[in-house]
Amino acid sequence: MLLKVKDVEEVLALINKEFAFRGKDMEEVALVDAVGRVLAEDIVSEYDIPDFNKSVVDGYAVKAHETFGSSESLPAFLLLAGEVKIGSRAEIPLKPGECVYVPTGGMIPEGSDAVVMVENTEDLGGDSIAIYKPVSPWENTIKAGEDVHRGRQVCRKGTEIGPHHVGVLSSIGMTRVKVVPKPRVSIISTGDEIVEPGRALEFGQIWDINSYSLSAAVSKDGGCPVLQGIVGDDRDEIKKRLLDALATSDMVLVSGGSSAGFRDYTAGIINEIGDPGVLVHGISIKPGKPTIIGKVMGKPVVGMPGQPVSSLIVYRVIVSPLVKRLGGLPETRGSIIKARFRENYASSPGREEYLMVSAEESGDGWVAYPVYGKSGMITTISAATGMIKIPKNKEGLYRDEMVEIILL
Amino acid sequence: MLLKVKDVEEVLALINKEFAFRGKDMEEVALVDAVGRVLAEDIVSEYDIPDFNKSVVDGYAVKAHETFGSSESLPAFLLLAGEVKIGSRAEIPLKPGECVYVPTGGMIPEGSDAVVMVENTEDLGGDSIAIYKPVSPWENTIKAGEDVHRGRQVCRKGTEIGPHHVGVLSSIGMTRVKVVPKPRVSIISTGDEIVEPGRALEFGQIWDINSYSLSAAVSKDGGCPVLQGIVGDDRDEIKKRLLDALATSDMVLVSGGSSAGFRDYTAGIINEIGDPGVLVHGISIKPGKPTIIGKVMGKPVVGMPGQPVSSLIVYRVIVSPLVKRLGGLPETRGSIIKARFRENYASSPGREEYLMVSAEESGDGWVAYPVYGKSGMITTISAATGMIKIPKNKEGLYRDEMVEIILL
Repeated sequence: MLLKVKDVEEVLALINKEFAFRGKDMEEVALVDAVGRVLAEDIVSEYDIPDFNKSVVDGYAVKAHETFGSSESLPAFLLLAGEVKIGSRAEIPLKPGECVYVPTGGMIPEGSDAVVMVENTEDLGGDSIAIYKPVSPWENTIKAGEDVHRGRQVCRKGTEIGPHHVGVLSSIGMTRVKVVPKPRVSIISTGDEIVEPGRALEFGQIWDINSYSLSAAVSKDGGCPVLQGIVGDDRDEIKKRLLDALATSDMVLVSGGSSAGFRDYTAGIINEIGDPGVLVHGISIKPGKPTIIGKVMGKPVVGMPGQPVSSLIVYRVIVSPLVKRLGGLPETRGSIIKARFRENYASSPGREEYLMVSAEESGDGWVAYPVYGKSGMITTISAATGMIKIPKNKEGLYRDEMVEIILL
Repeated sequence: MLLKVKDVEEVLALINKEFAFRGKDMEEVALVDAVGRVLAEDIVSEYDIPDFNKSVVDGYAVKAHETFGSSESLPAFLLLAGEVKIGSRAEIPLKPGECVYVPTGGMIPEGSDAVVMVENTEDLGGDSIAIYKPVSPWENTIKAGEDVHRGRQVCRKGTEIGPHHVGVLSSIGMTRVKVVPKPRVSIISTGDEIVEPGRALEFGQIWDINSYSLSAAVSKDGGCPVLQGIVGDDRDEIKKRLLDALATSDMVLVSGGSSAGFRDYTAGIINEIGDPGVLVHGISIKPGKPTIIGKVMGKPVVGMPGQPVSSLIVYRVIVSPLVKRLGGLPETRGSIIKARFRENYASSPGREEYLMVSAEESGDGWVAYPVYGKSGMITTISAATGMIKIPKNKEGLYRDEMVEIILL
């Protein structure tokens, strides 16, 4: 079978076009569980915040014009008419010539329009307060509705909720919030040799790796991984499991069976059950060339390479942006650190190559070394910090060239 | 009361010294839940991986020396003695002059020591296979134990578990793993004016903000937030709640009551119940100066400013590295983007100032604008992308100066 291999950029553009974020579904979560989630609706305040005129300092609520012209040498004298308790209503309106003590956050009484900081006053005893510094109208206060007017939009739909948004939402009295549901991503591992970790191996068998590494990657990207277990190299069984998975998830990853050998059923099945079926079969990326992308019931089905390191690289480059998009998250390629590459490395031009590297901090910034390992080996990457991209028109890297490490 | 104000660097160094990560506690979690957690023990493989000699290509297992000298024009001819099924034992030893078909990942038979890729062979029929290219001993194979030897350490204690580590751990058959417990961080909100969101406000009251924003920030840093609720300005009640919280958590944040007004009991209580008690009272940071750091029962107790924006800034600069350290995580200050600051901004030298900014991508990289808001206002920061630091010896920022935004 001839693979019509596509460039990575071409594939990402195609995915973009075929699988848009519709943003219609929502689920409600408690505010304490909302951090990292994505707002599914605009948030409009139902209240004025604050709903009273509030002091932002400890001091005396006054009529501002009665402090005009006061100074250290010529203070204004006001009669202390009382004290406002924090969290209580300021009961008595302020009369001319009076002031009232108000703590930070306290309500200022009707008739007052500013607060003089306690540092700029002196309690002379006998309810007489000396004011040493004038205040302008509404100085040291927040007026009712000045922070938020009732009806004002305080957070926009699509916002990734950070701790500060949680603060804003609780400030307007919210306890629950509607967010974008986490995309459910099913993972099916295929292969007669694959056995669930924890079960004893017979000769020739290996433990399942990709179900777990892909599941971890999906969680990290804000998705909800659904392990569909292991299926042997049985076309009917794989098809059945894929249909089951599609019924309950937003996306399916089929690990293994994506190259073009006789055990590779994935493309055939996708074409059989999907319309349009296979969109991409083969990507000019190293490693990861035999990756398949299909569309079934409007949902993405990705045939992932069985080799665990290739699988993780294809996930990061191709699948991760899609998981994030379906969850309404920004599709940044994750955190990046700049490093000096410490070896000469030859690559063959014509396809984008990704190389696992380990990085460490030196006196002179980060340095990176390639993590070598035979194809098919997994444990070498336990030392990897991330991966670097060698663009398709480059023939390799020179020692001391600067590279960008995409953190794993 | 006189505050002996300390520099931010001084405070961070002191925290570092007083609250080391002991790394003794551990809890066991399923591998599927391990991503983002920190390994509490070195991981040593109990098995050889693979535990058989394995082909990494589709091809014919051979005795390498029998292919030496073969070429397109002068192939070697071998007798096809059978086929190894994937996931099964290669039963029959290879005899001289023979080859056996092995799929990628399959076991190669005893007596064979290399695999010729199927592309470099031809099936001539009648069990005769032409070999057009020699292979060196062990070419296209992974020998038993070559990926991991039994007894080899594959992951180090203290590793933050990424998807690739999950892959490595499942490759050696693990299903559960011991990780560092998430540090339990209790949050107590104090103030007579504070009411739980969702409850109706009376005049002069406001909804609790800091319990929720701090809880979100703790979760984001890999901690386990424990909401201890709201306590009024009652010294005995605050003390009781703090002692309760200390009994069940690794760290306590007391929001409000940290400046030096008459409602500010936190420092006194910490000195009463703690040994040594208050370590820091006042940090030269703007906003956030009245922050208190104490040590009680060996655990950190932090008196946080009540003003919500100050509270988040103090969390990010002072508390966040400590939460991460107690969880065994690296204490990076989070993701940073570089941006061009688009206004002139004056600050007073002498203390480190943090300014909330909103950032957007322009054709020429990121640009940042200050998010202005009166002290005491919260909703303005819903538009914030992050915060920038103005070092204590700087007098402000010039328009078009480059800044680093610490993402929220």
